[in-house]
Amino acid sequence: MTDEINVSSEEKYQLIDITDRVEKIVKESGIKDGLVLVFVPHSTAGILLTENEAGLKEDWLSFLKRLVSGFDPEAEQARSGADFQHNRIDDNADSHILSGLIGQEKVFPLKGGRLLRGIWQQIFLLELDGPRNRKIIVEVN
Amino acid sequence: MTDEINVSSEEKYQLIDITDRVEKIVKESGIKDGLVLVFVPHSTAGILLTENEAGLKEDWLSFLKRLVSGFDPEAEQARSGADFQHNRIDDNADSHILSGLIGQEKVFPLKGGRLLRGIWQQIFLLELDGPRNRKIIVEVN
Amino acid sequence: MTDEINVSSEEKYQLIDITDRVEKIVKESGIKDGLVLVFVPHSTAGILLTENEAGLKEDWLSFLKRLVSGFDPEAEQARSGADFQHNRIDDNADSHILSGLIGQEKVFPLKGGRLLRGIWQQIFLLELDGPRNRKIIVEVN
Repeated sequence: MTDEINVSSEEKYQLIDITDRVEKIVKESGIKDGLVLVFVPHSTAGILLTENEAGLKEDWLSFLKRLVSGFDPEAEQARSGADFQHNRIDDNADSHILSGLIGQEKVFPLKGGRLLRGIWQQIFLLELDGPRNRKIIVEVN
Repeated sequence: MTDEINVSSEEKYQLIDITDRVEKIVKESGIKDGLVLVFVPHSTAGILLTENEAGLKEDWLSFLKRLVSGFDPEAEQARSGADFQHNRIDDNADSHILSGLIGQEKVFPLKGGRLLRGIWQQIFLLELDGPRNRKIIVEVN
Repeated sequence: MTDEINVSSEEKYQLIDITDRVEKIVKESGIKDGLVLVFVPHSTAGILLTENEAGLKEDWLSFLKRLVSGFDPEAEQARSGADFQHNRIDDNADSHILSGLIGQEKVFPLKGGRLLRGIWQQIFLLELDGPRNRKIIVEVN
């Protein structure tokens, strides 16, 4: 069973909690046991499991910006590195690199109709090149 | 088929080899072909495949500490950055961020009853906020 | 259904596009719906989804070399850090660490015989310790 979630991001970098929408799809599938794949078919976004706490979400976005800038404040100021060659044709090398580091899919165990995630393990779309409309594929198998 | 592994960590950051326990569950499932999911339902731990060599394990933990501190020795000394906002309510922003970077699950091919992993690809629970009791879910599908 | 792809790398760090070969295996399996696992059974290589653009591929390899060197040009010059303890027995701690950060597998949704990946989401073997012969396992489930 495959279904889709559609979200619109508002920021260049943004964390959007999609836990409820994923769990609704799983419930409506009627499938009780197996695997659940959450997959974003984009190479400038990611799927991240983390705690939905306001400070932590800011820490995440700040950390990712610093990481892709090599922890160099000047490079960060210059919108993630004028040195990226991809930026000659499209200004989003930072988005691709962070997307690949975080990953674009997560797989969950499903048992008795329940996604076996931890209580601090909310499911987020990680937008890295917004604002954009994004599609997330949920497959219950 | 779903089963659990329980481990107790002793350190804040620690690598615990769970390869034998995962493979025992796979064997006992009697399932010969499919997918095996190893999933830790925590957002301050990870599942990592790497070589079980003492020096490399130390390199991993040292690298992760430096990474989350922005490769800044002073920030590392200050227990992974006093600047994290999440640390106002819970002193483990570093644990969440490294957990998300490494990921909390791995999926393996299963063929003829054998997990098709490489010989240098041991399965580790990566503890990032210990000491704690941790549960790992293994699903054979 | 399980099949293999064999590739030979020529460089220490290299991105090799295997999208066509993965999709050929999926097509030949005759399976229309389910999950597809692409798994490299090595701990010094990775599977990465990113755009196949020449500049971006150089950005990726350059970023990874800098990352594992702590963004320190001198450490990068010294072939990824004389300080790694694993390098006393095998000169590839950098390869293991980057392999673990990127991950050694990806899972895709399969629907109507088609891998539901994005158009900028090519599938790459990420060689991190070449030149070597590498095997990639593709399981359609």
